Amino acid sequence: MSEVRLNVITGDWVVIATERAKRPEDFIHIKQKKEVPAYVATCPFCRGNEDKTPPETFVLKGPDDNWLVRCVPNKFSAFSPDGEIVKTKANFKQHITGVGLHEVIIETPEHNMTTALLPVSQIERILVAYKNRLLAFYKDTRVEHVIIFKNHGESAGTSLEHPHSQIVGTPVFPGQVMNRLGDAIKNYYYVNFGDCLYCLYLKDEQKDKIRIIGENDSFVAFVPYAALSPFHVWIFPKKHNACFGHIIDSEISGLADILKDTLMRIYTGLDNPDFNYVIRSLSSAGADSKFFHWYLAIIPKVIQIAGFELGTGMFINTAMPEESARFLREVKI
Amino acid sequence: MSEVRLNVITGDWVVIATERAKRPEDFIHIKQKKEVPAYVATCPFCRGNEDKTPPETFVLKGPDDNWLVRCVPNKFSAFSPDGEIVKTKANFKQHITGVGLHEVIIETPEHNMTTALLPVSQIERILVAYKNRLLAFYKDTRVEHVIIFKNHGESAGTSLEHPHSQIVGTPVFPGQVMNRLGDAIKNYYYVNFGDCLYCLYLKDEQKDKIRIIGENDSFVAFVPYAALSPFHVWIFPKKHNACFGHIIDSEISGLADILKDTLMRIYTGLDNPDFNYVIRSLSSAGADSKFFHWYLAIIPKVIQIAGFELGTGMFINTAMPEESARFLREVKI
Repeated sequence: MSEVRLNVITGDWVVIATERAKRPEDFIHIKQKKEVPAYVATCPFCRGNEDKTPPETFVLKGPDDNWLVRCVPNKFSAFSPDGEIVKTKANFKQHITGVGLHEVIIETPEHNMTTALLPVSQIERILVAYKNRLLAFYKDTRVEHVIIFKNHGESAGTSLEHPHSQIVGTPVFPGQVMNRLGDAIKNYYYVNFGDCLYCLYLKDEQKDKIRIIGENDSFVAFVPYAALSPFHVWIFPKKHNACFGHIIDSEISGLADILKDTLMRIYTGLDNPDFNYVIRSLSSAGADSKFFHWYLAIIPKVIQIAGFELGTGMFINTAMPEESARFLREVKI
Repeated sequence: MSEVRLNVITGDWVVIATERAKRPEDFIHIKQKKEVPAYVATCPFCRGNEDKTPPETFVLKGPDDNWLVRCVPNKFSAFSPDGEIVKTKANFKQHITGVGLHEVIIETPEHNMTTALLPVSQIERILVAYKNRLLAFYKDTRVEHVIIFKNHGESAGTSLEHPHSQIVGTPVFPGQVMNRLGDAIKNYYYVNFGDCLYCLYLKDEQKDKIRIIGENDSFVAFVPYAALSPFHVWIFPKKHNACFGHIIDSEISGLADILKDTLMRIYTGLDNPDFNYVIRSLSSAGADSKFFHWYLAIIPKVIQIAGFELGTGMFINTAMPEESARFLREVKI
């Protein structure tokens, strides 16, 4: 019989369909390999084509003065960086002007690279850029929430193949994040009597060991007990912190290391699947620092959302989280 | 500048990206038309192949004693109809046995039909079957929540082309539904001082007129003010009721009529796109009958979920809801 597991962090029930569970190998979709060149003349993100993007907001350069990581405003943003917040309330028609920040983090000058294959030192640079932009975005008083994410591959929603991530600052606090923060506050005060839910949950995963993929001084990578899909991975910082922007240098190294390791396991074990990753973080303001705990979530694109998921918010995971974890742990990289 | 609109029913913010808004016509994906026969020997849902499904749980027959609508248990359910609810709580590992009900509603004997093209009388039969199964599911004390949905087309998650819908009874109350119910209760008591949020919201949409697609004695079809995607349609009953199972015969006729009309507009105007629809309803128990209001939501598959949506729960709608409504209203059917 299948198991319906509660994800205590997201508040969602997940159906672990053990009876129709697939073997990890069944999720590998062999994609047509195509030759991709290291430089594409029309790509706005390739080195040499810097005039095809707006001026950079942040850059990290090598000793030869060539850029290694570049941040630029997204030319096709749904938000406008200029303008004032105007709030309109007319009965049930409530809206706010679409003022917001949206930048692209170009992860490497090489068009045909992929994040998993970058050296750890380059992934560190990407994380330094994330931190810089997140803190800069939160300095803009019009921004209520900042999200960092990466879409890898067409089915994960990207149209540009040059490796890049995105950061968006929204003028509203998302309802989904508000619900999770509310749950975290209730758990802090009324369930755990002054302990962070995320910290306690992480300790439980560490004690269980069975779903852990990797661990170092600062981070743990694991498939959560109630993973919403096969190979859904969370990377939690061991030190409690609500804001990714507070990450210190040694932690950046630790995160680069474990992120590279996890992405390589996914890349090698599942033959470079499309995926999304997301850094969930609150602001650096500190008011909510006791309750929330930032983390990075990786969701390989091996699932489809249909009527059941739309209507309930529940997911059906056809892989045992313990099996997904074992598979990724045993990948030879 | 784009607008960030609040959906007061779902609690989600939606970015209406007016600057990169597309024309309604841009969402039409011309699909390769293929010849589909009216009968397929291997299809478990075709008339004559009744032995390929488990015994039927409900059936509606014509005067010739041939079935017109048939309900059968889903052979590939993630839930088991047999067994007891067993609750297990070990620290943060909480689960419940995957006991639940899952049936398929076979909408027509004809393999190559599509719901939009069925006569209204046949859509009435489908709705009668929905009502019967929803009430039957809620009689099973192991069932906490029931969801009715339809996946039309491969990208909407269906693998069988014979027209069918599904109904699932879960042993847990979904977190997403709990959040909406909580919001509805707060609105009832503390915002609207004893009025249903959904009733008030519907009146506002009716007053505005601009997003209405169709209306009859019992129902209104409209694109909500904060539609999460292009051509996202809600069909609300005018009479307050939390449970779809309470629908009376004259309302079934009204719903069949407006559902057929709306699906035909989508079918004709957007060239038979893939879509999901969902009936959101609470139980017939009545405890929550004052706050909640059942409705039917149609979501054509013209959007992709990527990192931004996963990480915030917010959607970016590249069509103005007012434009989507005008387009559907003006389709010649």
